[in-house]
Amino acid sequence: MAAKLVLHEDRLFPSSPIERGIARELYQSINSLPIVSPHGHTDPSWFALNAPFPDPASLLIVPDHYVLRMLYSQGIPLEDLGVARLDGGPSETDMRKVWQRFAEHYYLFAGTPSRMWLDWVFHEVFGLRDALCRETADTYFDTIGTALKTDAFRPRALFDRFGIEIIATTEDPLDPLLHHARLIGDGWGKKVVTTFRPDNVLNPEAPEFARNLDRLGVITGCDTASYSGYLQALENRRAFFKAHGATASDHGHPSAVTFDLSRREAEDLFMRVRDGGASNGDAELFRGHMLMEMARMSQEDGLVLQIHPGAFRSHNTSLWATFGPDKGGDIPMPTDYVTALRPLLNKYGNNPDFTIIVFTLDETSYARELAPLAGHYPALKLGPAWWFHDSPEGMRRFREQTTETAGFYNTVGFNDDTRAFLSIPARHDVARRMDCGFLARMVAEHRIRLDEAHQIAEDLTYNLVRKAYRFA
Amino acid sequence: MAAKLVLHEDRLFPSSPIERGIARELYQSINSLPIVSPHGHTDPSWFALNAPFPDPASLLIVPDHYVLRMLYSQGIPLEDLGVARLDGGPSETDMRKVWQRFAEHYYLFAGTPSRMWLDWVFHEVFGLRDALCRETADTYFDTIGTALKTDAFRPRALFDRFGIEIIATTEDPLDPLLHHARLIGDGWGKKVVTTFRPDNVLNPEAPEFARNLDRLGVITGCDTASYSGYLQALENRRAFFKAHGATASDHGHPSAVTFDLSRREAEDLFMRVRDGGASNGDAELFRGHMLMEMARMSQEDGLVLQIHPGAFRSHNTSLWATFGPDKGGDIPMPTDYVTALRPLLNKYGNNPDFTIIVFTLDETSYARELAPLAGHYPALKLGPAWWFHDSPEGMRRFREQTTETAGFYNTVGFNDDTRAFLSIPARHDVARRMDCGFLARMVAEHRIRLDEAHQIAEDLTYNLVRKAYRFA
Amino acid sequence: MAAKLVLHEDRLFPSSPIERGIARELYQSINSLPIVSPHGHTDPSWFALNAPFPDPASLLIVPDHYVLRMLYSQGIPLEDLGVARLDGGPSETDMRKVWQRFAEHYYLFAGTPSRMWLDWVFHEVFGLRDALCRETADTYFDTIGTALKTDAFRPRALFDRFGIEIIATTEDPLDPLLHHARLIGDGWGKKVVTTFRPDNVLNPEAPEFARNLDRLGVITGCDTASYSGYLQALENRRAFFKAHGATASDHGHPSAVTFDLSRREAEDLFMRVRDGGASNGDAELFRGHMLMEMARMSQEDGLVLQIHPGAFRSHNTSLWATFGPDKGGDIPMPTDYVTALRPLLNKYGNNPDFTIIVFTLDETSYARELAPLAGHYPALKLGPAWWFHDSPEGMRRFREQTTETAGFYNTVGFNDDTRAFLSIPARHDVARRMDCGFLARMVAEHRIRLDEAHQIAEDLTYNLVRKAYRFA
Repeated sequence: MAAKLVLHEDRLFPSSPIERGIARELYQSINSLPIVSPHGHTDPSWFALNAPFPDPASLLIVPDHYVLRMLYSQGIPLEDLGVARLDGGPSETDMRKVWQRFAEHYYLFAGTPSRMWLDWVFHEVFGLRDALCRETADTYFDTIGTALKTDAFRPRALFDRFGIEIIATTEDPLDPLLHHARLIGDGWGKKVVTTFRPDNVLNPEAPEFARNLDRLGVITGCDTASYSGYLQALENRRAFFKAHGATASDHGHPSAVTFDLSRREAEDLFMRVRDGGASNGDAELFRGHMLMEMARMSQEDGLVLQIHPGAFRSHNTSLWATFGPDKGGDIPMPTDYVTALRPLLNKYGNNPDFTIIVFTLDETSYARELAPLAGHYPALKLGPAWWFHDSPEGMRRFREQTTETAGFYNTVGFNDDTRAFLSIPARHDVARRMDCGFLARMVAEHRIRLDEAHQIAEDLTYNLVRKAYRFA
Repeated sequence: MAAKLVLHEDRLFPSSPIERGIARELYQSINSLPIVSPHGHTDPSWFALNAPFPDPASLLIVPDHYVLRMLYSQGIPLEDLGVARLDGGPSETDMRKVWQRFAEHYYLFAGTPSRMWLDWVFHEVFGLRDALCRETADTYFDTIGTALKTDAFRPRALFDRFGIEIIATTEDPLDPLLHHARLIGDGWGKKVVTTFRPDNVLNPEAPEFARNLDRLGVITGCDTASYSGYLQALENRRAFFKAHGATASDHGHPSAVTFDLSRREAEDLFMRVRDGGASNGDAELFRGHMLMEMARMSQEDGLVLQIHPGAFRSHNTSLWATFGPDKGGDIPMPTDYVTALRPLLNKYGNNPDFTIIVFTLDETSYARELAPLAGHYPALKLGPAWWFHDSPEGMRRFREQTTETAGFYNTVGFNDDTRAFLSIPARHDVARRMDCGFLARMVAEHRIRLDEAHQIAEDLTYNLVRKAYRFA
Repeated sequence: MAAKLVLHEDRLFPSSPIERGIARELYQSINSLPIVSPHGHTDPSWFALNAPFPDPASLLIVPDHYVLRMLYSQGIPLEDLGVARLDGGPSETDMRKVWQRFAEHYYLFAGTPSRMWLDWVFHEVFGLRDALCRETADTYFDTIGTALKTDAFRPRALFDRFGIEIIATTEDPLDPLLHHARLIGDGWGKKVVTTFRPDNVLNPEAPEFARNLDRLGVITGCDTASYSGYLQALENRRAFFKAHGATASDHGHPSAVTFDLSRREAEDLFMRVRDGGASNGDAELFRGHMLMEMARMSQEDGLVLQIHPGAFRSHNTSLWATFGPDKGGDIPMPTDYVTALRPLLNKYGNNPDFTIIVFTLDETSYARELAPLAGHYPALKLGPAWWFHDSPEGMRRFREQTTETAGFYNTVGFNDDTRAFLSIPARHDVARRMDCGFLARMVAEHRIRLDEAHQIAEDLTYNLVRKAYRFA
């Protein structure tokens, strides 16, 4: 007999009765605030076209790199999970079988955030009351599959049901933003906004870099064979993204390095990397220089600069060759911020009207580097616990290791950074609960007052994110 | 008057009443499971010959590097603790005096795992009920000394009394494994197994490397002057160790680095390092290449590959020159896994029938590198908190920093890694209590169900270690 | 209406009732012990001249880099906080306005140690009972300002009221120590002692290094153009500092690196760096060599050697150019100890009559490097959580990550490291409470006995610091 699926009302709160009582009180006061999701990877076509989502496995398993990596780590081939091979080789097409395999191995997720997110989706979105396991796999597949075909489970209906006030998607500069244009036409322009993510035209090691620059030239009418035309094209696209709601750019470089090159040095470097044949050192130099240029443009157009460094992408070469990127094979690396960001911070970090939001996969930098930097430079703010650390323990470490030096007000609230649309409320709920638990401990230990904790809880949930991302 | 020596039944459990109650319930359900000790340094002659152990100081102090280092750090010369000088110079021979010095300074161990392990030995093995201090030193020495002369305290009697199901020792490839052969003859072959630890014939910087290779040639009848003969000799010894129960090899290199050299490169390199005169770069290259070769052999013979990197051995040169290695002068170093293990993981990491178990002395790698790697590659599993981190706080950090990304099922249970036979049950007990306490917090915070916690507690204690180390 | 300002009697203790009760009992037994402050930056003229302190803002805001950095990070120019510009440009001179700006932004400090320290000063030193905010700013300014003009708030009166037994200041070798001489004359020589801080004459990259050496020559009558005269001059000044109460030297190098150069190498190096024109590599080499020389001199004169590495000083170039150093722009860096300290520890670390106290800004070194080193080398002791980590969470991490390997007795109690004299009791109180909370958890988890915890609490508060700093 399957265990019951219960979402306890006190989940994630500390077990100490004093702290739990305070956490509950704080949570109740901010629980119903709208969701502001300033950084993520949902597909704007969902909201523009409002078509039904596909079957349960295609929606919840195949595209989720957290789920894929755990199952793969225990010996389940990605083919058996319905992930398509690039070579067109055989891969499971029976999505019910994919779901059953997932259900049989659901116990592997005990103690992981995926488990909490998914259980929330099962319980709150689909009304399931037995836990997922081999025995309940078919019931789950049928219940979820049936629901997804109804209007109440189409993207816009869920968007409203979830209480989302605004969500940002992420697009490439070469994207024509047609879905965002349609959303604007539908009056949804303030609900679904884009984000400028130019890695593919800033990183000389990106696939098809030279061709991307050519396309950028065509789209913008600028001469991207010259450095000045290239910069002009980027400015042009930033303006285009702003017109489609963007308030921020986002940059996923391998490191946080920045360089302050002269115009002459930059031009020479551009000529060397233009055709994608640059040395490793040139590629790093160019990325670091272009991050600086992005910061310069932000002084003018006001886009918030987000930096997400530190991932070794596609560590598993054969998996990448077979299935492509984003299948769970990215691994964090040690990441320096103190020397890497110094050129940028020295040039623009003292401008309080400029905002840089930094994320890290290297938790050792929280107390040692990032909190001290954010607790000093007016432009710098700390993004929330990210990716592998977007979890209860990860969030707890983030607050414990940053608050004493950076305070609460140099942070920017939560973001879900996800493509898993159905779990967005669950992710925000975990963050809200963990923040309330952290604040409850501070109140219980008489380090802040209860009335302050109420205000901070609201700021962490709603006000700081709107302010940092300039959602006026 | 000496304080009472009490082992509280709730020791190491969280003090929160809810969590403590759950921890106690979980612990009671796994407390009596047999001890599986897959990695350690007990002496196989103890079990083969079953002779009485020596006096208390020679058994519990002189060989224990944790104890020596703490006493030495407070200014007590190792000579005063009965540690033999390599030059034959004077060293305390009155073991009662050694014991008294230890007892007088026993307060130094407050808050350390040594203290918990030793108190357990005193209380549970020898029935002592007053705490160790200057006043009780002689009583302790006499009580323990008397007991050790009786049959009930011989190795095999204690082995049974401790509930040990299987224990692995660690031997050099040049070891003839005579004690293991005798144990097999005695019907103990499934209880005491060996482990293949070839550092002395893989590491060109090992003392007498060239001579070790000569001996390896003699033992195996292979021509270890040639690379192919050297590989053949290693394969030969691995088979010999397997025949004496080995299910794993173990590797204590300075770093985790691996290299994928061509046959030609490897042959050239072997010729350069063969006589021990290689440069530092060549030594590192050779170790990294041979780790790769060990992995290759594991594909064929099924031995589990254990990697224990990151120790700066014999940091204190004069202490090492006077007393030799393993006297408490080893210090952990920052250790990279992401780039170091990539060649090995890219070549063999996708094989779910191969098992690599990685240990670390650098806790920063738990959440940043090791949990993400183990949560992706089918072959990779995380060894438990090791050496300096084999302690309550260390175990807590291990679970807190690895579980959310790697889950529980990419870990391999506990191992005691010790030569201190009498404390083995105490060490396993600490691990069991800490795991139950961690699980209790997850249950109390409604992150896993109680019935799941029961299953996980049993898996962490017994099932995962047997599976990972292939104790069929 | 302003919130009430309350210092709860149980503040900082764990909220678990069992632990809180034990923490309270431990704290009550050590709460009234005198303050021993072995390392800090108070101005000896305060105690020598005993003049009244200035207005509240000049005393509590302008010189406090923790306060400045947080306000600056939120966009408040340092000019608006009354910090003088080096170019004599305009800066707020109305200290009431500075105080009001601080009060309006006091909410930013929620969750930071500055907030706890300042609230203690407001409540305990000045008797304020409403919390600081915009509405109470003027009352605060008037109340504090009025009090500071009275005799009861002069430095010596506060010194006695605070229960300070001994305080160490920090001076440059070129300082004539006139205030300390006067204090000795007044019979205060055992209460206020100096510390030898020779960075400006050891670091070739220090401003005016060559001129400093010239001055050192003049003061000592030694020929500091030669290496032997330079060493002699340093020995001379160390003796002079000892005569003014110094029991320790202190060294704030960028890294912990040490080198064991030959006399000939050292002389050549000295000649290269003598005039401040050395390369970066030479500067690092010279600092590392001179740290070794300081250790050598300590063998002879008995001064304790304190090493405070790992800060990137004046990371924000324009802020430094405008306002000078120590305005909140220093940022921690990753710091190596294992290889860096090895030459020094190999040469002098086995001498139990020598004491090196090491501090870190890189918490990753606690469990990985510093606790293992301090738990082995007789000379090495761990300084308390420092600077950015001198905070409740920082102190908790320090104990959790060092105790199991180094024990309590390789640590040296607390030091406040501050110039903010009024907050010294608050800082010691935070340390005492956090230590009692940590001990309480160990007692509640039955890891140490209550009677031991009492002794350890007293040792951490009073005995260890007196012993380590040789306050006979």
